[in-house]
Amino acid sequence: MTIQLYDFWRSNAAFRVRVALALKGIPYESIEIDLLAGRQFDATYSEVNPEHVVPTLVYNGDRLSQSLAIIEYLDTIQPEPRLIPTDARERAYAQSLALVSIADSHPLSAPRVRKQLGSMFNANAATVEAWCRHWVIEGLDAYERLLARRPAAPFALGLVPTIADICIAGQIVLAELYDAKLTPFPNIIALGERCFDLAAFAEAHPYRQRGYVGH
Amino acid sequence: MTIQLYDFWRSNAAFRVRVALALKGIPYESIEIDLLAGRQFDATYSEVNPEHVVPTLVYNGDRLSQSLAIIEYLDTIQPEPRLIPTDARERAYAQSLALVSIADSHPLSAPRVRKQLGSMFNANAATVEAWCRHWVIEGLDAYERLLARRPAAPFALGLVPTIADICIAGQIVLAELYDAKLTPFPNIIALGERCFDLAAFAEAHPYRQRGYVGH
Repeated sequence: MTIQLYDFWRSNAAFRVRVALALKGIPYESIEIDLLAGRQFDATYSEVNPEHVVPTLVYNGDRLSQSLAIIEYLDTIQPEPRLIPTDARERAYAQSLALVSIADSHPLSAPRVRKQLGSMFNANAATVEAWCRHWVIEGLDAYERLLARRPAAPFALGLVPTIADICIAGQIVLAELYDAKLTPFPNIIALGERCFDLAAFAEAHPYRQRGYVGH
Repeated sequence: MTIQLYDFWRSNAAFRVRVALALKGIPYESIEIDLLAGRQFDATYSEVNPEHVVPTLVYNGDRLSQSLAIIEYLDTIQPEPRLIPTDARERAYAQSLALVSIADSHPLSAPRVRKQLGSMFNANAATVEAWCRHWVIEGLDAYERLLARRPAAPFALGLVPTIADICIAGQIVLAELYDAKLTPFPNIIALGERCFDLAAFAEAHPYRQRGYVGH
């Protein structure tokens, strides 16, 4: 299969898809869309993704967006290893864990949000960082409580990493980007170590991508 | 089946689940969690939902959270009418449309975000409303471009409403809550009329819920 991924080193949503592709061993071509330079608004990319976000995955002429939808699609075209369980209850649990970061935490630190804080509240760089850190910690806090209720063994859903682990690992990446301390979150630290011990997670890390310029 | 839904009139995520339950004709007991009064942080509800958000759906002793995960689970326990298509490409398209609101637009106007704008930037009520309106319009704008690329016929995925229509209808509800004009979005207006002509959508509207106190 030929797969292209519109990608950016710093994008947490792109990180999720990079991990998923690596766990499945699917080769792909990465096409950089520099979000910090505003390349997502270029006319050529607007045609690819009218929402002006990354990632977009191109497969067989189809353009797929949104990391959760892309990862579920990857489970269809290459089922092993499965990243979203087939059992309905486990599936709902995996997706709900994933959405803590995807829907409730990560959106608050997206580039467009940081920009809007500047234009609407005249927020300086330090204040914008503090805003992002606040939401990263909120997400970590929710994950820690959820992992306390059902401990990872050794991954969030059981023996193998799933979309839940991918999103929790992404939340750890956000903590690094915004200098949020992980010390209060022992369950997350332990899970993160198990994830980033795997090459698929480690090599998808923002700091390992082409274009990384420091943070 | 006995289903309980922890619910709140103003919650857009709860609106989505109310529509899904109504489209499937599944009866349920609604339990109000007053988000404006901070009831989501009560110890009893923290036990139900450690993330302190609504909705939570309780079925057979299982507690499910996150509207997208809940709706997919409802498709398993009662497949008709199906709200997330089974075909992999259509499924990815439906989910990606859903996530424009779920992940990229709606989170920016959540109660905790409005509160944080006040405490961090001393934003007054009018400024907070303007912030929310900005993000509602961004979401509408993305939907309008996506619906222009693949016109609804008559619903976003075809002949029957799916999770995509539920989320676009939810975005229309947000536009009403924050006084965002729909005039620039003819595709959304037309789709919204088709949705709210259906009792399942109309009766799930925030203004039709117990506890509605004006906005």
